[in-house]
Amino acid sequence: MYIIQGSSRENGNTEQLTAILTKGIQVESVNLRDKKILQIVDGRHAESGFMPVEDDMASIVDAMLKHDTLVFATPLYWYGMSGHMKTFIDRWSQCLRDEALQFKERMQGKKVYVVIVGGPKAKMTGLPLVQQFQHICSFMGMSLEGWIIGRGSKPGDVLLDQETIAQAKEWNREWSEEAK
Amino acid sequence: MYIIQGSSRENGNTEQLTAILTKGIQVESVNLRDKKILQIVDGRHAESGFMPVEDDMASIVDAMLKHDTLVFATPLYWYGMSGHMKTFIDRWSQCLRDEALQFKERMQGKKVYVVIVGGPKAKMTGLPLVQQFQHICSFMGMSLEGWIIGRGSKPGDVLLDQETIAQAKEWNREWSEEAK
Amino acid sequence: MYIIQGSSRENGNTEQLTAILTKGIQVESVNLRDKKILQIVDGRHAESGFMPVEDDMASIVDAMLKHDTLVFATPLYWYGMSGHMKTFIDRWSQCLRDEALQFKERMQGKKVYVVIVGGPKAKMTGLPLVQQFQHICSFMGMSLEGWIIGRGSKPGDVLLDQETIAQAKEWNREWSEEAK
Amino acid sequence: MYIIQGSSRENGNTEQLTAILTKGIQVESVNLRDKKILQIVDGRHAESGFMPVEDDMASIVDAMLKHDTLVFATPLYWYGMSGHMKTFIDRWSQCLRDEALQFKERMQGKKVYVVIVGGPKAKMTGLPLVQQFQHICSFMGMSLEGWIIGRGSKPGDVLLDQETIAQAKEWNREWSEEAK
Repeated sequence: MYIIQGSSRENGNTEQLTAILTKGIQVESVNLRDKKILQIVDGRHAESGFMPVEDDMASIVDAMLKHDTLVFATPLYWYGMSGHMKTFIDRWSQCLRDEALQFKERMQGKKVYVVIVGGPKAKMTGLPLVQQFQHICSFMGMSLEGWIIGRGSKPGDVLLDQETIAQAKEWNREWSEEAK
Repeated sequence: MYIIQGSSRENGNTEQLTAILTKGIQVESVNLRDKKILQIVDGRHAESGFMPVEDDMASIVDAMLKHDTLVFATPLYWYGMSGHMKTFIDRWSQCLRDEALQFKERMQGKKVYVVIVGGPKAKMTGLPLVQQFQHICSFMGMSLEGWIIGRGSKPGDVLLDQETIAQAKEWNREWSEEAK
Repeated sequence: MYIIQGSSRENGNTEQLTAILTKGIQVESVNLRDKKILQIVDGRHAESGFMPVEDDMASIVDAMLKHDTLVFATPLYWYGMSGHMKTFIDRWSQCLRDEALQFKERMQGKKVYVVIVGGPKAKMTGLPLVQQFQHICSFMGMSLEGWIIGRGSKPGDVLLDQETIAQAKEWNREWSEEAK
Repeated sequence: MYIIQGSSRENGNTEQLTAILTKGIQVESVNLRDKKILQIVDGRHAESGFMPVEDDMASIVDAMLKHDTLVFATPLYWYGMSGHMKTFIDRWSQCLRDEALQFKERMQGKKVYVVIVGGPKAKMTGLPLVQQFQHICSFMGMSLEGWIIGRGSKPGDVLLDQETIAQAKEWNREWSEEAK
């Protein structure tokens, strides 16, 4: 299980919720905010194609491809995934054109979970983001296994969102069983 | 009218559709790809608050605030706005905390149009992005006046999407009348 | 608390989930399938206005208006609310034109919960229905307090959907506290 | 081309928009409001299965199955399709269990268009309905070729919605070419 953390701050609600979900489970993870990831330059129809980029993208992609299960954890920023995460995913378009990488073939079949934390109305206003992830998974041939939306603004808030915590503990129970 | 261009390449479909929409109308515009815009670091609950950032954000925001009508033009990247545009909008959270700026007060009441170009199924798969913009506008007290989704991948494709071009010409007619 | 049941069969998954949600709580409820509710005939712009209708609509509306909290419980039929429930809600357009009823004024401020049970992918495919209810509540000035989507086809299935049951028990705890 | 009309009144905006779309094209159509269609009684898991129903369902289904292209035309009632249309589609669940009918096999591959007319904000508030139709088509193996949302309340309003009329004329041009 590979956790892709999109939050821009340390130990915020999204990380706190992820900690409950993965308690007792061995995971690998990346904090996108600690990595250098440049914006995509669309080279799909340029004569020269995509240009090489000097950043941390390749190492994250390598790690991601080694896992069967991916967890995308992001705060709900402006009713979408964080810019950190969007910038990362946009670059997949370049991965798709790198024939040696076989990106789509290797992403295909992966299980995906989406973890979102937003403000008090996030269980409504976060739904377009869930639908976006559904389209992403569908395009890549990945299976969107589940998604969870927590509510919180100040760090610690999400721990008081009892409904979400009840769901999270159930996910943790199921993930723990599968990990056995 | 202020055009915020989110495409990562020059003269792609999104810019071509925008050109039809704004034909004969005086507009100001910014290409986000030409600007330095750093990812947000969420300082809302940090003791020191948000830290000053050295990039082009302030000048874009200044220009944007001078206009009554904003057009967000973005290719549909991974079923959402481009990373360039998301990174830009995420930073609004910092603008909201800058009291001298009076960001929300000045954004309030602006008219917003959204222009999207995606692949052949974009009129379906782009809907979560439209809904996201609806939430953004609603939060900021802006009025989402209209949105349009064109279909195209290779530059020039969108010009062959007759349904979208018919809509775009009608928008252009209405915008031209208002500009008088 | 008033439960509006939209299922077409007795003791199916939707009713079973509702039973868990309301365990130990005094509720009033109506099974729409047991009532005669005719399709709306749009008379908003007819010279004679809406015509009187002989069915059970008035008595259900009367009961509904007496409660501060409404629960709309429906199976996910064809990715929407059941025809029974849609037929019922369509008729609200006629209630809105009945001045003596003061329908909108009295619906305003009510708390609304939505309970949905669909097939294995309902947590994704049920989202447009949640968004529809959000628009309905927003138009009527009601507050959409929460929604839950269970998975099940054969009666009893939803009881095995552990994530949903965990959520439902938490709702029941909160509702029980409020009822005190 | 088979037009399934879901409006509850004659010559309202939905029918007016449909008339523009189909001008000069030979179509067959049904007004659901003129037909007797009973609510579904879910018999999928009943010992006796679905019970025979005495209404007009069979004749509409027969007509529908003869066409390669279906147009679902409905006013936006309460942010969804009309109760007339929902009641009709719910009954498809019974068609699916009628082995002699081979309903799914015969619906598969049909082209579908969706025509919606709602109030002034319908281009936003009608989106969940478009997404619902996408799920319906996807389940049935039909292809959602296009959708259009017009704005209008009083009969005749939609004819003043220039953007929609421009789109509609373009559809009409394409349909006319295909019909040749």
